[in-house]
Amino acid sequence: MSQVTTTDLYEVTMALSYLREDMRGRAAFSLFVRDLPPGRGFLVAAGLEPALDYLSRFRVGRSDVQDFADTLRRPVGDLEPLHGLSFDGEVRAVPEGRIVLAGEPLLEVTAPLPQAQLVETYLLSLLCHQTAVASKAARCVLAAAGRPLVDFSLRRTHGPEAGGQAARLCALVGFAGTSNVAAARRYGIAAAGTMAHAYVEAFGSEERAFRAFARTHPGPVALLVDTYDTDRGVATAARVFKDLRLGPGCGIRLDSGDLGALARRARTVLDGAGLEEVRIIASGGLDEYGVDRLVREGAPIDAYAVGTKVGTAADAPYLDMAYKLVEYDGRPVMKLSSAKATAPGPKQVFRGPGFRDVVGLAHEDPPGDAEPLLRTVMRGGLRTEPPDTPAAARERFERDLAALPEEARRIERPVPPVPAVSPRLTALTTLVRHRIETRTGAGRTAAG
Amino acid sequence: MSQVTTTDLYEVTMALSYLREDMRGRAAFSLFVRDLPPGRGFLVAAGLEPALDYLSRFRVGRSDVQDFADTLRRPVGDLEPLHGLSFDGEVRAVPEGRIVLAGEPLLEVTAPLPQAQLVETYLLSLLCHQTAVASKAARCVLAAAGRPLVDFSLRRTHGPEAGGQAARLCALVGFAGTSNVAAARRYGIAAAGTMAHAYVEAFGSEERAFRAFARTHPGPVALLVDTYDTDRGVATAARVFKDLRLGPGCGIRLDSGDLGALARRARTVLDGAGLEEVRIIASGGLDEYGVDRLVREGAPIDAYAVGTKVGTAADAPYLDMAYKLVEYDGRPVMKLSSAKATAPGPKQVFRGPGFRDVVGLAHEDPPGDAEPLLRTVMRGGLRTEPPDTPAAARERFERDLAALPEEARRIERPVPPVPAVSPRLTALTTLVRHRIETRTGAGRTAAG
Repeated sequence: MSQVTTTDLYEVTMALSYLREDMRGRAAFSLFVRDLPPGRGFLVAAGLEPALDYLSRFRVGRSDVQDFADTLRRPVGDLEPLHGLSFDGEVRAVPEGRIVLAGEPLLEVTAPLPQAQLVETYLLSLLCHQTAVASKAARCVLAAAGRPLVDFSLRRTHGPEAGGQAARLCALVGFAGTSNVAAARRYGIAAAGTMAHAYVEAFGSEERAFRAFARTHPGPVALLVDTYDTDRGVATAARVFKDLRLGPGCGIRLDSGDLGALARRARTVLDGAGLEEVRIIASGGLDEYGVDRLVREGAPIDAYAVGTKVGTAADAPYLDMAYKLVEYDGRPVMKLSSAKATAPGPKQVFRGPGFRDVVGLAHEDPPGDAEPLLRTVMRGGLRTEPPDTPAAARERFERDLAALPEEARRIERPVPPVPAVSPRLTALTTLVRHRIETRTGAGRTAAG
Repeated sequence: MSQVTTTDLYEVTMALSYLREDMRGRAAFSLFVRDLPPGRGFLVAAGLEPALDYLSRFRVGRSDVQDFADTLRRPVGDLEPLHGLSFDGEVRAVPEGRIVLAGEPLLEVTAPLPQAQLVETYLLSLLCHQTAVASKAARCVLAAAGRPLVDFSLRRTHGPEAGGQAARLCALVGFAGTSNVAAARRYGIAAAGTMAHAYVEAFGSEERAFRAFARTHPGPVALLVDTYDTDRGVATAARVFKDLRLGPGCGIRLDSGDLGALARRARTVLDGAGLEEVRIIASGGLDEYGVDRLVREGAPIDAYAVGTKVGTAADAPYLDMAYKLVEYDGRPVMKLSSAKATAPGPKQVFRGPGFRDVVGLAHEDPPGDAEPLLRTVMRGGLRTEPPDTPAAARERFERDLAALPEEARRIERPVPPVPAVSPRLTALTTLVRHRIETRTGAGRTAAG
C-alpha cells in the first residue's frame, strides 16, 4: 500500500481545503505524549529514523490522487491540487534513544500547512508504537541489571512488521540479541535461539533430540529442558554435554514452571557434573516484572528471553501521543477543549542535570548549563545529517539512563520527573488563551 | 524484508536438523488459544486469509539461504538443504469471522516436518494479532447495538501495517467505515472522516473554518465542534448548516468532555434549529466500555468512532496462542510441562446448537447435528477454494454472534462457553500421557 494513502481521510480533505483556500503559510506542529501511562517512569524516544525515511520519500503521485478521488467519490480533477505535493519542511526532533517525559515534544514539523497536515497520521503511527515498545524494553534492561536480554517477541507482535521494529528497539536499549532473523540481518543484531518443544517431541526422546541437534550444529548449543519433566530434562542435557565434551558457550533453556526454583536445581546439577560454564536461560511470559523478581530472589539465571509482553508493550500498548498545531503563519495557536488544552508555539526541551527539564519556546536561550534536546534533523525536506546509527542511539540511551533519578528507574510504582515550563512559554500560553477566549467567547460558559 | 527470513532463528536451526536427520515425515501442528484473556467472552477467528497468502508464496530462495548462513556464521553450503523448500502441505482452518473459544484449533497444518516447522512464527504473528483485534472490535459491535461504528485507529496501531489490518478486521465484524484511506481502497471499505482541531485553529475561527470546509467539500460534511467550547461550537455549526442549507447526511463530531451530556445539549440545539437530520458522532478514547455506557444512558449519539484502544486491543493486546506439534509420522505427541500440557492428535471442533462445542479428533464423526468448524482450505500447498470475501466473513460472524449465549456477549464480566472434549480425544490424551511418562519417567517427580 502507498505510504501516502496510508493516512486518515481527514488529512486529505483538510489539505485539499487548505490549498483551495490558499492557506499555504508555514505551520508548526508539535508531537508529544500528554501523560505517561501508569507503570512508566520515563519514555525512550523512538521512531525518528523511519519517520525521516518516510518524510524524505513523501510525494503525492498520480495514483494517490486517483485513490483520493475514488475514496471521496469526486472527479480526479478536484483532487489535482494535491498532485506532486512533497515534504520540503523542517524537522526538529529528539534523537532516538534519548529519555523523554510527559509534555516534551519528541518532534516538531515546520512546513507549509497542507504538507505538515498530510503527514500527521503516518508520523504518529511510527512514533507512538515505537516509543511505547522502546520504553517497555528499557525497563527490562533496568530489571535485568546487567544480565543479557534477548527479544523473542516476533510471534505475538502486531504483525511481522511490528516484530521487526520490536527487535530494532530492543537492541537500541541494549538487548544482546533477537530471535528474528530478518531483523537481525537488517539491523545488525546478533540472532539467538534454542529449540522448540516440537523438536523434542518429534524425536520422541530428549536424549535423541539433544544429540541430533548437536550433530547438526557443531559448536555451542542451547537445549530446551522442560518438554516433559524439567529436572529430568536438565539431567539429560548434562549427560549429553558431558558425553559430547560440550560446555563453554552452551546453555539450557527453562520455559515454564517456577523458573527461580528450577534454575537453582539446574545449577546444582550442572555444577555437580562439572558444567559450571553451561548457562541457564529463562523464558516464558517474562517482562520487567518477572525478570526483576527473579533477579532480586537471586535466581542463578544467566540470560533472559522476553517476548510477547515486551513486543506488544502489553501493559501500555499505546501512548497518549498527539500531533498538535502550535503556530500558523507566525500566529501561535492552541486548543482549549476540556482536559486536552495544548500550549502554543514551537518548543524546545532544556535538560538540566538530574533531569531538571524545562519545556520552553524554541528560540529561548538555554537556562544555565541545560542541554537542548531537539535538534534540526531535516531542512528543506532533506536530512541534515547522515542516518543515525544503532550504536549512537544506544549510547545516548545509556547516558540518559545513568542520569535518571532513582524513583523514575523503579520497576514497581515508578515516579517520573515532571518538566517545568519556562516563564516565557507560560506567558505566551496565558496570552494566547486570553486572545482566543476574547475572540470566541470560549471559557465564558465555564466561568459562568 | 523477506517473509521467509521473518522468522525465529530456531525454526531454521530445527528445520535444518530435521533435514539432516532425515525427519521428513508428516507432522501435524495445531494452532489454538490456550485461555481467553479476562474481559473476553469469545474470540473471532482472523488472520487466515493473509496466512494462506503467506503459505502460497513461501519458498526458501538463494538469498534466504545466504541470510541464514550469515546469521548462523556458517558456510552457505551447510544451509543448502533448505534451499528451494516451499510449503506443499495441507491446511485445515476455521474461516475468518467465525467465533471460537479457548482450546479450539483455529488452524491445523499437516506437512513434512521441516516446512511445517519453518512457517510457525510467521503464522502466529498473523493470527495472534488479528484474532486479538477482531475480538475486541466485535465487542464494540455488541456495545453499539446497531449504531454505526467507524475505525479511527491508524495513528496509534503498532505501525501502519497493523493499522491496515485493524481497518480490515473492524469491517469484518461489521464496522461501517474506516478513516484509513489505503485500507479503504484495498479492502473495499467506506472511508470516513471529519476534520482535526488543527483545521479550526489554522482558520482562527470556527465559523470561518466550517464555511471553508463546506466550500471545498460540497455535499454532506461533518464538523468538529470541541476546539474551544463545545456548546458554542455546536451553535456555530448549526448556524453554518442553516445558512448553507445543509442538513441531511451532515454531522457534528464531539471528541472530548462528557460526551453524553454534550450530545444531549447538542441534540436540543440542532433540533431547535430544525436540523433534526444532522447526526452526532462521538469519538475520543472510546472502546466497547465507553460505547456501552453511552448507549445504556441513552445518549443521542448516532455513530461512534473508536480508535486506539480497539486497534491495539489495548486491554488484551496479545492472546495466549500456541502452534503445537500434535502428531509426527503417524504418532500422536504432546507436551507435559507444567500448566502448558497440550492434547495430542489433529483435531476438529464440533459446534452444537447454542455453542455446545466439542473438541474431538479430526476424523471423528460429528456428534448429532453438530457442525465441524475446520475446513480444508489448502491441499498440496494450493488453496482449495477462491480467496474468501469480506462479505462472507462478516456474514459468518453475524450468524455466530446471533447464536452466542447472552453471558458470553456481555460487555462487563463476560463468561465464555467452555468446549467439551470428546471421549475419543480424552482417551487418546490419557494413552499418550501414559506412554510418555513410562518412556521418559516424567510425571514421577510430581507424583512422589
